[in-house]
Amino acid sequence: MIYLDNAATTRPDRGCLEEAQQFIYQNYYNPSALYAEGYNLHIMLKQARANILSLIADDNYEVIFTSCGTEADNHALFCGGRRGNVVTTMGEHAAVFSAAAELKQLGIEVRLAPLRSDGGVDEDELIRLVDDKTSLVSVIHVNNETGAVNDVNAIAKRVKAKNPRTLFHSDGVQAFGKIPFKLSENIDLYSTSSHKIGGMKGTGALFKRKKLVLKPFIFGGGQENGMRSGTENVFGIKMFELAALKHYGKLRENFCNAKELSYKLWSLLDKQLFVRISPENGSPYILTVGAKGVRGETILHEADDRGLIIGTGSACSSNNKKRYSRVILACGVGEEVADGILRLSLGSETCESDVVQAAAILNSVVKNRREMMS
Amino acid sequence: MIYLDNAATTRPDRGCLEEAQQFIYQNYYNPSALYAEGYNLHIMLKQARANILSLIADDNYEVIFTSCGTEADNHALFCGGRRGNVVTTMGEHAAVFSAAAELKQLGIEVRLAPLRSDGGVDEDELIRLVDDKTSLVSVIHVNNETGAVNDVNAIAKRVKAKNPRTLFHSDGVQAFGKIPFKLSENIDLYSTSSHKIGGMKGTGALFKRKKLVLKPFIFGGGQENGMRSGTENVFGIKMFELAALKHYGKLRENFCNAKELSYKLWSLLDKQLFVRISPENGSPYILTVGAKGVRGETILHEADDRGLIIGTGSACSSNNKKRYSRVILACGVGEEVADGILRLSLGSETCESDVVQAAAILNSVVKNRREMMS
Repeated sequence: MIYLDNAATTRPDRGCLEEAQQFIYQNYYNPSALYAEGYNLHIMLKQARANILSLIADDNYEVIFTSCGTEADNHALFCGGRRGNVVTTMGEHAAVFSAAAELKQLGIEVRLAPLRSDGGVDEDELIRLVDDKTSLVSVIHVNNETGAVNDVNAIAKRVKAKNPRTLFHSDGVQAFGKIPFKLSENIDLYSTSSHKIGGMKGTGALFKRKKLVLKPFIFGGGQENGMRSGTENVFGIKMFELAALKHYGKLRENFCNAKELSYKLWSLLDKQLFVRISPENGSPYILTVGAKGVRGETILHEADDRGLIIGTGSACSSNNKKRYSRVILACGVGEEVADGILRLSLGSETCESDVVQAAAILNSVVKNRREMMS
Repeated sequence: MIYLDNAATTRPDRGCLEEAQQFIYQNYYNPSALYAEGYNLHIMLKQARANILSLIADDNYEVIFTSCGTEADNHALFCGGRRGNVVTTMGEHAAVFSAAAELKQLGIEVRLAPLRSDGGVDEDELIRLVDDKTSLVSVIHVNNETGAVNDVNAIAKRVKAKNPRTLFHSDGVQAFGKIPFKLSENIDLYSTSSHKIGGMKGTGALFKRKKLVLKPFIFGGGQENGMRSGTENVFGIKMFELAALKHYGKLRENFCNAKELSYKLWSLLDKQLFVRISPENGSPYILTVGAKGVRGETILHEADDRGLIIGTGSACSSNNKKRYSRVILACGVGEEVADGILRLSLGSETCESDVVQAAAILNSVVKNRREMMS
């Protein structure tokens, strides 16, 4: 099988698994326990925290391990957006967008900035929405449906210039481990996930500016310095650390590689059949295209039968029953194309023959469908 | 090493790991994805849900997978206790107790029922605290520090008789897979955890009465029927299912075995050195004793050096810096004994030689300490 749905989840890295499996079989203790075996794990978690932190942040930040990117986003939204209004965008992942909808239910005014046609947020419109009552601004770093990259450091700077008391959060789930980036001082909170970069499902992290006083989202035994209670998922966290170190060790190499592969993939797709949705300067790991007049789901299933796994927009969105993607429509894509959206997402394991075969399969599937229909 | 801290966490079951590792290496897909490989995982999660449900509940209940027992408890407290007052006990795990403290901050009145000397809740006092404004009652099933068992079905019945609109939640983390029990119709919400019964850290479940309308606690892509968003931790959930099936397959055998081992362990401990804290009719998996005049932490470290791993109260409580356990003091134990609390907790893998050796080590460690001190 050719796997081009790496934005949904990735195959856990075998090398990392070999190294981390000791935390299943031997070092299975509770890291909060006082005996040496437990305390050693506590120290190892501390190292994991420091290692992951160092990849995109300096000592002014700390890492709170969470159970997933969604929890990290919810923590930021519910604990950061407690009063006045919250400004976010039409291009957010459901983890932010639905949390914002719930904030609205709780009486917080939610303001949504529109997208440009490339899927990035309209920055001027966003800034216009910020006022002296804005408690939180949340802007996705790399859009999960189009790969559009928002310059969150620059946006955060503009937000802080307008209201220095406003917290700035970014969902970095599709950026972490993939896009060259360092957290600037204007970003207060940043969400990441492990299973998008070769780690396990069930682990994420919220980067937090140390000086920011934030409420915990999950209360209990006081793990994660009181910021996230619940027995630490040691195996998941160590896998996250190892996968992140591995990805950052080859970040630029992988990035350039993905860029070439994405370029090749698009160049091989038949332009009579496909229109490009992803911006040219977006994340090279996500190439979203529209197949005019053919349903994305139909293409997905036929491609699957021929050995190619792809996505249609966000995997998560399959849980809601809306036909068209909110994000894709917000980019200004018409319904005819929005019906045939395919997300082709690369990972660090994707190779040239994958994209060559993928393009051939997709061209053939859509061509056949079109012929059947006419 | 002899491992008697199974109430803190257990060694993941090797047989279950062998069966579940396909969900790391081969079936690593996103279960929300639409292609066959993703959908198959969706079906497998459905099976896991049904299998786990059937162990303690009927079709009137459903299972929401969470990232841990703490999250399940927080979901119940924050989404069930939204108005009026919340009644809980002095014997709750921090996951409930700290969540209740946060509810208090949010303006909900929190009423705490006292404990009897055996660690169980004083039922009459608890019922007295329930009134027509009580939105939620939460009572721990098996106390994690003493093993005291609360008859939560009976307590829930009395609560509902006094106020049928009150929700009843129980933290079943130390009961699930260990104590013969079925959910009665009076229990609305019940929390469980996987890593206490041979599963992985990072997975729990909230059992919920189907007809109960409950808000999600984590919002996003709409996984778990919209009740808990975030990519499903497939490997963790399958490990939970397998470990739970295994434990329930031998529930009574394990229970009787633990009873004999616990009896033996207590019978071998020198009564000149140790007083019993755990009730006689509590969970056989937890034997908590006090070593008068010797600090529990000192004993723990010396036992560790001699190859015996034990706990001092709740592992989680090591994160807060209070010297004495709130629960132990609430049982009426004096400070001198409360300083020397040891929790010896058995698992399904514990055998007779473990407890025989453990008793010998503990007798020797405490005797030596006492002699050094006098």
